[in-house]
Amino acid sequence: MLDDNTIVAIATANGIGSISIVRVSGRNALAIALKLSKKQELKPRVATLGTIYNSNNEIIDEALLIYFKNPYSFTGEDIVEFQCHGGVAISNIILQEVLKCGARLANPGEFSKRAFLNGKIDLTKAEAIAKIIEARSEDAVKLLAKQLKGELTEFVNDIREDLLFMLAYTEVNIDYAEEDLPSDIFEQIQNKLDKIKDKLSNTLDASKRREGLIEGFKVAIVGKPNVGKSSLLNKLLNFDRAIISDIAGTTRDTIEESVKIGTHIIKIVDTAGIREADDVIEKIGIEKSIEAVNEADIVIALFDNSKALDNEDKKILELLENNSQKEIITVLNKCDLENSFEKESLDKEFISLSTKETITPLIKKIETILDSNTHSDDMTLVSKRQVDEVENTYYHIQQATLPLETGELEFFAYHINEALHSISNITRPYEHDQMLDVMFGSFCLGK
Amino acid sequence: MLDDNTIVAIATANGIGSISIVRVSGRNALAIALKLSKKQELKPRVATLGTIYNSNNEIIDEALLIYFKNPYSFTGEDIVEFQCHGGVAISNIILQEVLKCGARLANPGEFSKRAFLNGKIDLTKAEAIAKIIEARSEDAVKLLAKQLKGELTEFVNDIREDLLFMLAYTEVNIDYAEEDLPSDIFEQIQNKLDKIKDKLSNTLDASKRREGLIEGFKVAIVGKPNVGKSSLLNKLLNFDRAIISDIAGTTRDTIEESVKIGTHIIKIVDTAGIREADDVIEKIGIEKSIEAVNEADIVIALFDNSKALDNEDKKILELLENNSQKEIITVLNKCDLENSFEKESLDKEFISLSTKETITPLIKKIETILDSNTHSDDMTLVSKRQVDEVENTYYHIQQATLPLETGELEFFAYHINEALHSISNITRPYEHDQMLDVMFGSFCLGK
Repeated sequence: MLDDNTIVAIATANGIGSISIVRVSGRNALAIALKLSKKQELKPRVATLGTIYNSNNEIIDEALLIYFKNPYSFTGEDIVEFQCHGGVAISNIILQEVLKCGARLANPGEFSKRAFLNGKIDLTKAEAIAKIIEARSEDAVKLLAKQLKGELTEFVNDIREDLLFMLAYTEVNIDYAEEDLPSDIFEQIQNKLDKIKDKLSNTLDASKRREGLIEGFKVAIVGKPNVGKSSLLNKLLNFDRAIISDIAGTTRDTIEESVKIGTHIIKIVDTAGIREADDVIEKIGIEKSIEAVNEADIVIALFDNSKALDNEDKKILELLENNSQKEIITVLNKCDLENSFEKESLDKEFISLSTKETITPLIKKIETILDSNTHSDDMTLVSKRQVDEVENTYYHIQQATLPLETGELEFFAYHINEALHSISNITRPYEHDQMLDVMFGSFCLGK
Repeated sequence: MLDDNTIVAIATANGIGSISIVRVSGRNALAIALKLSKKQELKPRVATLGTIYNSNNEIIDEALLIYFKNPYSFTGEDIVEFQCHGGVAISNIILQEVLKCGARLANPGEFSKRAFLNGKIDLTKAEAIAKIIEARSEDAVKLLAKQLKGELTEFVNDIREDLLFMLAYTEVNIDYAEEDLPSDIFEQIQNKLDKIKDKLSNTLDASKRREGLIEGFKVAIVGKPNVGKSSLLNKLLNFDRAIISDIAGTTRDTIEESVKIGTHIIKIVDTAGIREADDVIEKIGIEKSIEAVNEADIVIALFDNSKALDNEDKKILELLENNSQKEIITVLNKCDLENSFEKESLDKEFISLSTKETITPLIKKIETILDSNTHSDDMTLVSKRQVDEVENTYYHIQQATLPLETGELEFFAYHINEALHSISNITRPYEHDQMLDVMFGSFCLGK
């Protein structure tokens, strides 16, 4: 299955910088590096200055060469890094020269895929690597760095060990008699199952709460027409714009509607059309509001201090009541205008904003909520794939409880086996050919 | 003069890539790296995998650390490189952590400036480094790589030695008597002077011819209105567009009007307005044409096969005659239409183009001219600064000839001294404070 070719890619971002890296991996990596640098040898891991020649024996650059001897490299194969001068031309020329020596261009994610196939990283680390490159906030980086260090791998391995233990005991029990087993063995197993279920459901909860850490937290603004949604939206989008625009352009279009608040990134739900007309958001009716609230991590509910509570406000209040499990921030807008609104109808603490002043109190509230939401020692999953597997593990452990009670041990064993299968998929799936191609294909080139 | 602070910058381009490098230089570089990685030591030049912690003791990333012990580093100071995961967030977080440890953000070009001040590179190498980053063609890279390897430094040193030799002999002659000197000493000196003058003027010529290697060669299209200039221009701009657009967006706006032909980059002279309206270029009158021809490395002169030679054509022919030292390509356009043009008025070999077919013959001709123009073993200067100093050296050597003949040795010595001063400025100026600030300030950040 392992492609034996030597692969090459530019590992640094495309553009103006002082250093670029061209990375070569595979059995000819060292030979290619020696040929291009006319060196006799490269000591493993020692950064060595070399002159790089092209196939016409002309000097192309002076570069640092670093040789990572297999298996002590990222891919587990021989790797040579050419740390050459930056810019677009040189790294491309060195790339071309490496190709002329018989290497081929790496596919997206192929370095990581080889690392996985050679047992250097498991899938959780591969996913962390892919996501860390696109991460935009410090919180995201910290979360992913933990996964990179093997936190999720350890979590998976602990659960796998427990499940294997249960399986072993029950299979003994199926095959032989009950006599030699401790009398409370099923109770022990049930306890273990409950603990695993707790761990899994805490993880799923924490992951759900912290979902926005990497992609950004979704914020919905709801309220009746003319309550000031579009104006608030613009104030939110312009908050700390400078910091975000530093990063803008380096990733996707959606980033334009993202704002950095504290160490978090927030995204405004349903921003389509915002740029077209400022009043578009005002037109979002109650159905749209329900949708937005469903998707949101935080809901900002706006009420107008200058107008009496009306039916539309009541609908919004009802919507909030139906979503009391959400993080809701109630805002009374236009507090610098004469009061007509029945403040007592807002049954919890609310934030007052005026039409002219800054929205700092709101920003602070959002930050507080996100800080407390994201502060968690629970394991956090960072991809839909991981969440699916944990949910499936949870499902089968739940299904295993009844057969354990009724003594239908074959059914119990079946479900534990399925759970084992699912939890193992997180780090190192049993049958994975197709899945791997899909997963690594989404990586950026050169990774 | 040397700023003692420890400096830090992200050395790789900003954007999505799999690896980024944060580079730290100065006396605290090693201490900072040990602190962030919690390592006891880093062996010089050995790439070592480390976990990077922030000031709250949280894991940020796993990175390769490479320590370059002074004086064996780019700057001549202690350097540590953090080769961390790519993307925008991680490298910025590591940068922030290094700043928290007391380093400060490097100024543009400051790494190179320190390398110069510590005697690790001379100015020719510093210039080559700055330009190589922005280079867009293989030819440019090869030219700059030679300078990086010290070709110009050697050239300067050879001339300096010769000049010092002359100065020594003449000063002996001024201070003492003629008796102990070889009788043909002045003849010898005159010979040496002539040789140096040849070297310098060859260098200036070659540099002029190859000026476009780095920035792109300038091509002007001249011809009367409606001869097909704008159509030809568009065909040129669209030639090999794919290759250029790979690079586009990474550098300046002007690149949009550049085309890669063979290993060369060409730029169309006076492209302002081209995007506004296709017929703008058609309006360029004879005055504009003269201007364009003056600036151009290559002139394409267009004539219309379907129309009789007229006064405007004659003006163009006159313009070409007055610029016979230029590289001129005469093109007879619209050759698929019925002939009315007096072909014999074109006194040299011309290229025939039809309105419908490709412009490949023209492209090939441009490539042939640029290939032969750029093929030269003569030393090539790559900056206006270098050209100015060589011209000044040449001037003073010329001025030294007469006083040598007339025996006014003080005047001779004065001019040789001035020449010595100028040629030395190319690599390592005597008084340089202000000049250095200007020069290194134009470098990209992190270099």
